[in-house]
Amino acid sequence: MSRICLFPGTFDPITLGHTDIIDRALDLFDELVIGIGINNSKVPMFAVEQRIAWIQEIYKDQPKIKAASYEGLTVNYCKKIGARFILRGIRYVNDFEYEKTIADANRMMDRTIETIFLACTPQYSSIASTLVRDIYRNGGDVTQFLPAAVLRTLKEQQ
Amino acid sequence: MSRICLFPGTFDPITLGHTDIIDRALDLFDELVIGIGINNSKVPMFAVEQRIAWIQEIYKDQPKIKAASYEGLTVNYCKKIGARFILRGIRYVNDFEYEKTIADANRMMDRTIETIFLACTPQYSSIASTLVRDIYRNGGDVTQFLPAAVLRTLKEQQ
Amino acid sequence: MSRICLFPGTFDPITLGHTDIIDRALDLFDELVIGIGINNSKVPMFAVEQRIAWIQEIYKDQPKIKAASYEGLTVNYCKKIGARFILRGIRYVNDFEYEKTIADANRMMDRTIETIFLACTPQYSSIASTLVRDIYRNGGDVTQFLPAAVLRTLKEQQ
Amino acid sequence: MSRICLFPGTFDPITLGHTDIIDRALDLFDELVIGIGINNSKVPMFAVEQRIAWIQEIYKDQPKIKAASYEGLTVNYCKKIGARFILRGIRYVNDFEYEKTIADANRMMDRTIETIFLACTPQYSSIASTLVRDIYRNGGDVTQFLPAAVLRTLKEQQ
Amino acid sequence: MSRICLFPGTFDPITLGHTDIIDRALDLFDELVIGIGINNSKVPMFAVEQRIAWIQEIYKDQPKIKAASYEGLTVNYCKKIGARFILRGIRYVNDFEYEKTIADANRMMDRTIETIFLACTPQYSSIASTLVRDIYRNGGDVTQFLPAAVLRTLKEQQ
Amino acid sequence: MSRICLFPGTFDPITLGHTDIIDRALDLFDELVIGIGINNSKVPMFAVEQRIAWIQEIYKDQPKIKAASYEGLTVNYCKKIGARFILRGIRYVNDFEYEKTIADANRMMDRTIETIFLACTPQYSSIASTLVRDIYRNGGDVTQFLPAAVLRTLKEQQ
Repeated sequence: MSRICLFPGTFDPITLGHTDIIDRALDLFDELVIGIGINNSKVPMFAVEQRIAWIQEIYKDQPKIKAASYEGLTVNYCKKIGARFILRGIRYVNDFEYEKTIADANRMMDRTIETIFLACTPQYSSIASTLVRDIYRNGGDVTQFLPAAVLRTLKEQQ
Repeated sequence: MSRICLFPGTFDPITLGHTDIIDRALDLFDELVIGIGINNSKVPMFAVEQRIAWIQEIYKDQPKIKAASYEGLTVNYCKKIGARFILRGIRYVNDFEYEKTIADANRMMDRTIETIFLACTPQYSSIASTLVRDIYRNGGDVTQFLPAAVLRTLKEQQ
Repeated sequence: MSRICLFPGTFDPITLGHTDIIDRALDLFDELVIGIGINNSKVPMFAVEQRIAWIQEIYKDQPKIKAASYEGLTVNYCKKIGARFILRGIRYVNDFEYEKTIADANRMMDRTIETIFLACTPQYSSIASTLVRDIYRNGGDVTQFLPAAVLRTLKEQQ
Repeated sequence: MSRICLFPGTFDPITLGHTDIIDRALDLFDELVIGIGINNSKVPMFAVEQRIAWIQEIYKDQPKIKAASYEGLTVNYCKKIGARFILRGIRYVNDFEYEKTIADANRMMDRTIETIFLACTPQYSSIASTLVRDIYRNGGDVTQFLPAAVLRTLKEQQ
Repeated sequence: MSRICLFPGTFDPITLGHTDIIDRALDLFDELVIGIGINNSKVPMFAVEQRIAWIQEIYKDQPKIKAASYEGLTVNYCKKIGARFILRGIRYVNDFEYEKTIADANRMMDRTIETIFLACTPQYSSIASTLVRDIYRNGGDVTQFLPAAVLRTLKEQQ
Repeated sequence: MSRICLFPGTFDPITLGHTDIIDRALDLFDELVIGIGINNSKVPMFAVEQRIAWIQEIYKDQPKIKAASYEGLTVNYCKKIGARFILRGIRYVNDFEYEKTIADANRMMDRTIETIFLACTPQYSSIASTLVRDIYRNGGDVTQFLPAAVLRTLKEQQ
């Protein structure tokens, strides 16, 4: 039975913090679905198609990785794609508490799905999409925070 | 002098996490007022009358427990109802810091009112009203999170 | 049924941090037993008789407060003295996690005993017996950390 | 080379928590600029001119302290005013994580700017502008939270 | 290439907290080695042979699980047994910080070994071997904390 | 009045985590004394003379930095050397709480001495002397954790 994992998030945009987690977790799974959760109450900075395109571009040589978007509960989407694992990166302590609460609630809804945590590599632990968007909006240099594929598009749009 | 306590919150809706704290704290007090704070800047999911009705239904056989709503500062409402104690449940570390700050500020405003903390029983520590509302909105199963009285109404409304 | 509470600790020596918690919690209970747990693997700075004498001196006009020592499990001592409540003061976040773990374990051993938490008043939150002993051993001024009764003895012993 | 420091914040309004940090840090620097960051997505309670006027009034006898407002990235404003240091007060653990993330991101953008942290004095650690605004809006007593200059204006406006 | 994982610890004794992590992580790996680290500066309560025997008894029908002891650095033992993954359960926030530090240091020593975290199921989050040993030493009831195989031996030894 | 600062610690041995804090804080002060606190109840791995020699070797071209050892209370040593500032690096949240408690107690003993905190650069945040000693004792590679001067001596001693 193959090990399919969902890495859920907003990826608005995908950062070097995300790719660090993905790269380090990849060996654990046979298939890793990067799932962009659609939350109608938040207006994203980048269109979902753009966010998916970036992930596909970054991992175009890695057949185990797929990118997709989904609506509704994460556990329901896991069932739909046959994922028994959810992957989450933890940057710091406050993250951990929030993530644990979500993981506990998900386990209460479906005992067959396990959440796997990786701690962010220290040099990436300050890279949050929110912060990166804020720096970008204010004209700051985001080169150290984002993958080359994302940086290329941002440059073209300027 | 009787021991009157206020358990303030939004209770939108009351969860098994709340009733766990209420049931375990009840012996400490002669009267426990479950006070729904009205915050005009947040739109609740359920009407305040509905939230009060649920609490009254759950505790209809427990004469020490009353349900009410209030506006303005919590310490002012304590004085109005003669409560010398405020009860708060703590789920996790981040909760504790926030609650301590509020309790410190309340003590600075009125030294005669003490805030009493109970730590949530582990199996209820992931049950937050916000999370439960989110699961409910997305059609998930909330049976394990809510009291029977609340579940009954939610079923009727579907 | 009277509300008896155990405030367990080492009280080596009792500090202004402890008396702050005791004074603020006193109204909640009909009897408050300050219980010095004897732990044979740690060598205390002050004899248990001295530690009890200090508490009795400080609260000689407060008939609701008793001082005693005990060995073995805290929940067993609660049962012996008829205490349904355990009182603990929380200074900071790390304290809270440790105290929650102990409270959870105690609840697993005896569901009828509840642990009640009070957050330390900010100005007393840095006063830990360990730190005070360390300052005292190094000849520092401990006037701001200890009750008058303790300070008097320490002065006489010099 | 003189030590210029930026103390960035919203100061809506400046509280005794802020002045505690400023007063204790002042000796470290030759010039301390209190910089009100303008964030167009949040509506402040008090106009930026009022907030600057309060700071100038409080520190009118302290020539090392200047008040100003700025837009855009904090590191860019530092460069503009020649500040090599950023000052931040930390009230509690959750604060620390947030502040560390911002400081790390700022260091990634400009290695020559260092963020210096002071821990709030315990009695001021519950004073957050958000909380003070909330108490003020609800007609509570804010005397213990705010400098005399701010209290005077608030009284006149009533 | 098979996924071999080391679950390092003291297991003095193995608790229901440990078996919860093992059972939930098992599907992720092709082989899970439960490795008892020998630390000469701490005197264990139970002999290493006894601790291994308990694990073997509990998992006698689970061929993917092996029990062993090791000395020296954990990353060196991983290399010896071909493990590319280290498994750790996290009970609470303080645990997370400690575990992250160890995982970061291990990654600095060997980039090919990843540490995978699972958060403890809430009802097991208060079960630490230290606490269980303390309760057992004081004659308390440890039935809710330990696997049947361990309880059987403890009963025989009384 | 010159700005003299004490950086107290055990420095057993000095690590890249320490030098990161020293290098980044140096501009703030006119003189920085690296003070090795002598604690008679702990047996260090390296002699105090060795630890001082390493610091002197590392900073032989930096006249603002001095190395010394001291006994007794840190605030007393500050007074002796005329230091009005204490410097501490904070690696993570648990560190912060401990450091804040010590800083608060020091301020209660002497209001004229301020503790200044710097957050460790992420890549150094896992480097604790305790961990490094443990890796060294077990024959692990400590190259990434220690300054060249320390590594040279360790190599000679093998």
